[in-house]
Amino acid sequence: MATIKDVARLAGVSVATVSRVINHSPKASESSRQSVLIAMEALQYHPNANARALAQQSSESMGLVVCDVSDPFFGAMVKAVEQIAYQTGNFLLIGNGYHNQQKEHQAIEQLIRHRCGALIVHAKKIPDAELVPLMTQIPGMVLINRALPGFEKRCIALDDRYGAWLATRHLIQMGHQNIAFICSNHAISDAEDRLQGYYDALKEHQLSDNERLVAFGEPDEVGGEQAMTELLERGKTFSAVACYNDSMAAGALAVMSDNGIAVPENMSLIGFDDVLVSRYVRPRLTTIRYPVVNMAQQAAELALALANSKPLPEVTNLFSPTLVRRHSVGGPG
Amino acid sequence: MATIKDVARLAGVSVATVSRVINHSPKASESSRQSVLIAMEALQYHPNANARALAQQSSESMGLVVCDVSDPFFGAMVKAVEQIAYQTGNFLLIGNGYHNQQKEHQAIEQLIRHRCGALIVHAKKIPDAELVPLMTQIPGMVLINRALPGFEKRCIALDDRYGAWLATRHLIQMGHQNIAFICSNHAISDAEDRLQGYYDALKEHQLSDNERLVAFGEPDEVGGEQAMTELLERGKTFSAVACYNDSMAAGALAVMSDNGIAVPENMSLIGFDDVLVSRYVRPRLTTIRYPVVNMAQQAAELALALANSKPLPEVTNLFSPTLVRRHSVGGPG
Repeated sequence: MATIKDVARLAGVSVATVSRVINHSPKASESSRQSVLIAMEALQYHPNANARALAQQSSESMGLVVCDVSDPFFGAMVKAVEQIAYQTGNFLLIGNGYHNQQKEHQAIEQLIRHRCGALIVHAKKIPDAELVPLMTQIPGMVLINRALPGFEKRCIALDDRYGAWLATRHLIQMGHQNIAFICSNHAISDAEDRLQGYYDALKEHQLSDNERLVAFGEPDEVGGEQAMTELLERGKTFSAVACYNDSMAAGALAVMSDNGIAVPENMSLIGFDDVLVSRYVRPRLTTIRYPVVNMAQQAAELALALANSKPLPEVTNLFSPTLVRRHSVGGPG
Repeated sequence: MATIKDVARLAGVSVATVSRVINHSPKASESSRQSVLIAMEALQYHPNANARALAQQSSESMGLVVCDVSDPFFGAMVKAVEQIAYQTGNFLLIGNGYHNQQKEHQAIEQLIRHRCGALIVHAKKIPDAELVPLMTQIPGMVLINRALPGFEKRCIALDDRYGAWLATRHLIQMGHQNIAFICSNHAISDAEDRLQGYYDALKEHQLSDNERLVAFGEPDEVGGEQAMTELLERGKTFSAVACYNDSMAAGALAVMSDNGIAVPENMSLIGFDDVLVSRYVRPRLTTIRYPVVNMAQQAAELALALANSKPLPEVTNLFSPTLVRRHSVGGPG
C-alpha cells in the first residue's frame, strides 16, 4: 500500500505539505493541493486513520457499547448513533457486552484504547462502583438506559417503572382485575423497575397482587412461551397479561394461539419496547413505546459536546414511555 | 489520561520496557512485568491502539461492511463475524452502506484508513469494475453475498436462483399451478436471480409465466403489503405466492389476513431468508433458509487467513439455500 512519502515524491512536495492537504489546512497552496490530490488518486493512497489519531491524541471515532447488535432494539440504537456520527464526520466503533460483566468491561476498554473521545455505553452488568472511575476518567462518556448516582447529567435513561405502571393501568381501565405479569429473569434494574411498576398500579387500584400470577423467563420469544405456559399450568384465573418486552409477548401470544385462547376476545396482552415484532404479530400488539432512537441521538449529541468541551445540548435525562394502542387489548372475556 | 511515559516513570523502567510488557514480548523480565502492570493499574493507563496499529503498519481490527446493521439479517452477520474476531483477539469495526454506492465506498475507505487487514464487504451497489482495484490492493478483502468475476475464491455467495427455484417447485409439488411472485424493486443481482429462479421452476413444469402475476416493492414489510394489494387488485387467479424475502411475506400475509384470505387454506405463501420474522408471524412461515451465520463465519476466517498470509481454510464459495417447512403452505384452496 502506498505511503505518504510516495505521495510526496510523486507530487513533488514535502511530506508536511501532503499532511496539510489531507487535514484541510489553509496553509496548503491551491497548486500543491491539486498535485497532492492527483498523486493520491494515482497511487490509491488511503490516509492512515491511526497516524492521524495518534498525532491528535484523539480519534475521529465515536464509540458505542450495546448488549448485542443482532437484537433489533440495539440495531435501532446503533443506527441512530451512527447517523449523528456520520453528520459530524466521525466513524462509529461498536462493542458488544452480551449481558456479561467481563465483556462489557472489555468492550469499553477497546473503545478507550482506540481513543474514542465520545463514548456511549449501554452496560447493565458492571456495578456502579466500577463505572464511576471510568466516567471520571473519560469526560465524553455517556450512559444510556442507566442512571448512575452522581453522574445523572451524563445519563439518558427511561422511566421503566412508570412504563409498566402505564401498561398495567391500561389493562385495569379496560376492566381487568386479574392481571398476570411475565418478567425477565435477568437481575438488572429494567426487570426490577418494570415489575415494581406493575405492583404500583395494582396497589393504586386496590387490586391484590399474587406471586402466582408472575412468571419469569429469558427476555426473548422462547422465554415468553415458557412463562406463559407456566402461568396457564398454575390454573389461576386471569384475563390479561402485561409483559416485560415485545419478544416475550410474542412468545406468550403463540402459546395462547396454540391453546385456542383468542386475543383480545378471551385474553388481553400488552408488550413493552415497541420494536419490530409488535407490528409483525397478529393481532398487532398494544405496547409501551421505548423511544430508543430519540434517546440514542441525544446521548450521542451529549457525548460529542462533552468530548469536545462544547456547550451542552439540552437533553432529557429521564425519558417517559408512552402507550401505543393496537389490537391486543380488549375488555375481560 | 495517563501516557506510556507516566507508566515508565512510576514503574522505574524505560518506555521501551513498558511497550514490551504491553505487547507480551518475552524480552521483558518478570520483575519489570510486575512493576509495569502495577503502574498501569495505579494510573488507569489504557494502551493506545492507534499507536500500536501505526507501529505495526496494521491494526488488530477486522472490518465489516453491511447494508444496515439495524436489519436483523445484517445483525446476524455482524454477530457471526464478531465471534470470530473475538476468538482471534481482533476488534471489529463496522461500516454501513445503506443500499447506496457512495456510502458503500465511504465505509470501505474508512476501514482501509483504519488499516483493517481483514475486511469482509457486503456491497451490492458498487460496480464490478470499481471493486477490482480494491480487491487487488487489499489482499485480506473478502466479498460476501456477491461473486466477483476473477475473484471467485475470495467471494462467499448464495445461489439465489436455486433458492427461488426451490421455493416455486415446492408450491408446484403441493399442487399449485397459478403462482404469483412478490419481488424486490432494487436493481441488484439478488432480485434478478430470485425472479429468474421462479421463472425456471415454472418453465420446467410447463407452467406459463405471466407478468401480471409478478409485483415489485421495497424489500420490507410495507413493500410486501403494497405488492400483495396490487396482485389482488389485478384480479388474476392465483393460489400461492412466493416472496423475495420474509419481510415482504409478512406484509403480504397481513394484507391476506385483512382481506379474509386464510393461509394456507385459501392461499399458500413462502418466504426467503429465514430471519426472525418467519418465526414470529402466524401461521409460521414456510421459507428458504439463507445460511447467513455460516457464510459470515467462513468469510471472516477466509479474510483473516488472507490478511495474515496463512494457509487458506476450506470454504464454500457458493452456498445452497434449503427449504424450511413450517405452516404457510398447503394445497390449492
